[in-house]
Amino acid sequence: MSTIRPFEKPLGMRDTLPTIFEKKESIRQIGREFLLGRGFEFIKTPTLEYYETVGKSSAIKESNLFKLVDSQGNTLVLRPDMTTPIARIATTKLLNEKIPLRLAYFSNVFRAQELEGGRPAEYEQMGIEIIGDDSVYADCEAILTTIEFMKTLEIATFKITIGHAGILDAIIRKNVDDEQQYSVLHQLLVDKNYVGFEEAVHSFNLAPEQATILFAFLQEATELTNIRQISKFLYDKDMFIYMEQLASVLEIANALDYIDFDFTLASHMNYYTGMLFEVFAENTGYPVGNGGRYDGLLQEFGYAASAIGFALRIDQLLEAMPKKQLTVDTVLVLYVATQFEKALKTTASLRRQGRRTTMQAIEGIDDIARFEKNFSAVVRIAQGGIDNDY
Amino acid sequence: MSTIRPFEKPLGMRDTLPTIFEKKESIRQIGREFLLGRGFEFIKTPTLEYYETVGKSSAIKESNLFKLVDSQGNTLVLRPDMTTPIARIATTKLLNEKIPLRLAYFSNVFRAQELEGGRPAEYEQMGIEIIGDDSVYADCEAILTTIEFMKTLEIATFKITIGHAGILDAIIRKNVDDEQQYSVLHQLLVDKNYVGFEEAVHSFNLAPEQATILFAFLQEATELTNIRQISKFLYDKDMFIYMEQLASVLEIANALDYIDFDFTLASHMNYYTGMLFEVFAENTGYPVGNGGRYDGLLQEFGYAASAIGFALRIDQLLEAMPKKQLTVDTVLVLYVATQFEKALKTTASLRRQGRRTTMQAIEGIDDIARFEKNFSAVVRIAQGGIDNDY
Repeated sequence: MSTIRPFEKPLGMRDTLPTIFEKKESIRQIGREFLLGRGFEFIKTPTLEYYETVGKSSAIKESNLFKLVDSQGNTLVLRPDMTTPIARIATTKLLNEKIPLRLAYFSNVFRAQELEGGRPAEYEQMGIEIIGDDSVYADCEAILTTIEFMKTLEIATFKITIGHAGILDAIIRKNVDDEQQYSVLHQLLVDKNYVGFEEAVHSFNLAPEQATILFAFLQEATELTNIRQISKFLYDKDMFIYMEQLASVLEIANALDYIDFDFTLASHMNYYTGMLFEVFAENTGYPVGNGGRYDGLLQEFGYAASAIGFALRIDQLLEAMPKKQLTVDTVLVLYVATQFEKALKTTASLRRQGRRTTMQAIEGIDDIARFEKNFSAVVRIAQGGIDNDY
Repeated sequence: MSTIRPFEKPLGMRDTLPTIFEKKESIRQIGREFLLGRGFEFIKTPTLEYYETVGKSSAIKESNLFKLVDSQGNTLVLRPDMTTPIARIATTKLLNEKIPLRLAYFSNVFRAQELEGGRPAEYEQMGIEIIGDDSVYADCEAILTTIEFMKTLEIATFKITIGHAGILDAIIRKNVDDEQQYSVLHQLLVDKNYVGFEEAVHSFNLAPEQATILFAFLQEATELTNIRQISKFLYDKDMFIYMEQLASVLEIANALDYIDFDFTLASHMNYYTGMLFEVFAENTGYPVGNGGRYDGLLQEFGYAASAIGFALRIDQLLEAMPKKQLTVDTVLVLYVATQFEKALKTTASLRRQGRRTTMQAIEGIDDIARFEKNFSAVVRIAQGGIDNDY
């Protein structure tokens, strides 16, 4: 424990000052109108959830959870993702009214960070969930919603990489000898550590045909020019047929230009069961977001229903968007105390004209010249009358 | 520790479903435009702060703080109010650019609750802070901003009760024998327990003239018809002169109809030093909000500056507002899989016309009739063509 100075914030916590706030707010406004326009409904869930329910189901590493104990001795977590709380709400409240359900949110999520990481421990996501529709058209809707939103934000260069949790699972499991080998290889793919994957396969002393298939899969699944290439690795063809259908639907929707297929794509979110994807854009340090199908999660909350969703990070969207200067255009009405009534009238009139107007008594300022610099126009109301510089 | 069922939420935590979400969102939208129009700038602060800094300065009872320990062994709190984080930001970042500073926020705050209370442990506040202006005009701006906002929300019946932390402090301290008696009486006024206050004064065995003054103060300060009545209780007249100025300024602004003066008004927020107020409205279970002047708090963060602010609770504003039915007007485009391309075109066209439109494959629905009931209009695209019921 170190001495904390008054101005310090906890590790990974950030302030949002007015300029960045307004830029993020503009993403929220655009995102809200966009998602309402597509028939999504917004909800909000609490910051704290029980560890036993949402915490355990959320599939976030234990060490990344912020945990605390409440006065009854129960362990609580700061929500590490929104998918699991939404699964809780949908199963207990909303699915009786409407299936399929289309829900949306803007919400902060929390991931405890290590000292050396420098990553944010709290960040805002915009996301959707489509619950109760297991057709390929729901997968397509999730992907098209992502693409259309990236375009709406005028993000010129972006790609969506699509994989499939079930296909990846089947191929690895078939070609390793035990669960531990499976876990090692899966985690290496989550980390996109392909060199580590090859080294691990070598070290496992697998049967030659197993190792050959894993190497070929690693090579070919990341360099797909045609989704059909992946089918030779599969014994059960159902999942492949599903993905072929998805590709054809995405083609009809003219979406393929924005899409890469990569069946080595793996997620640390272990609730994904089917199609999953990551969103990449130029100029961002991390993926902008990710999504996927999780047909088993809602069962844990007592209602068997299929679901697909995605979440985009507001900070990464802001980095990916074209840089625009937001101009703040605020008028200052500066008055001496005796002219308070006149100042009130002038200010009310400016506000009625739709001008943002700050009203300030000269008696409350030390450095008038410095204060005035922050405004696009100044109306000075002194004893003698109004001096107007705009 | 009890067994937790999957659908349970921690004590005092609430979900916000779409209907309530939209009502609260409309308050946010109105509030944002309103405060931007008055020259306030929006900021956001992290959910977690250090206990040593913001936690201790926030003046919230220890038992109401949500605390946790981070990986470095430091104690963190979920922010219990926004005034203290803003004091941290203002002193370390913003006051070098602009004084006075006008900041605003929409933000959740956290208060751990007892099992029997039934109060929310997380709720959203809209608030402002004016920092670096110690004139009576800043106090007036805070009060007028509150009044104008209540009017903007069409809340017909509301009152602002104004007191003064310094005046109350001086009167009680002068008429008790020790710090403990002071604390007991102050807390009874925080709880608005006037009977308890009288009983306590009796039990203290104070000098007759002390008890007489305290009884008279309790009586007269809650039934003020003229602010001048309070001056006889004061030895140092400066604070009284300040309040008289404030009253005259509020009169010029035609605000007195919305205001009661009550110098017994006390706050559990012990950082208030000057004028403080509470906002009441018809139909709400709690005060809608409160505010006041805290000229000592910023010094704790290393920069001596005066400040005044208020915070209003979104849930209480919603209760106080006239009830309106929000109509959701969403079109459903329902299609069979083979007509996906036609459905895409129809949907795009509806969205271009500004209609909220949900696109749904029939293949993804079990109970079509029940699903269709949720929409204001349905366009069915079957093999044969388009069947349009709107």
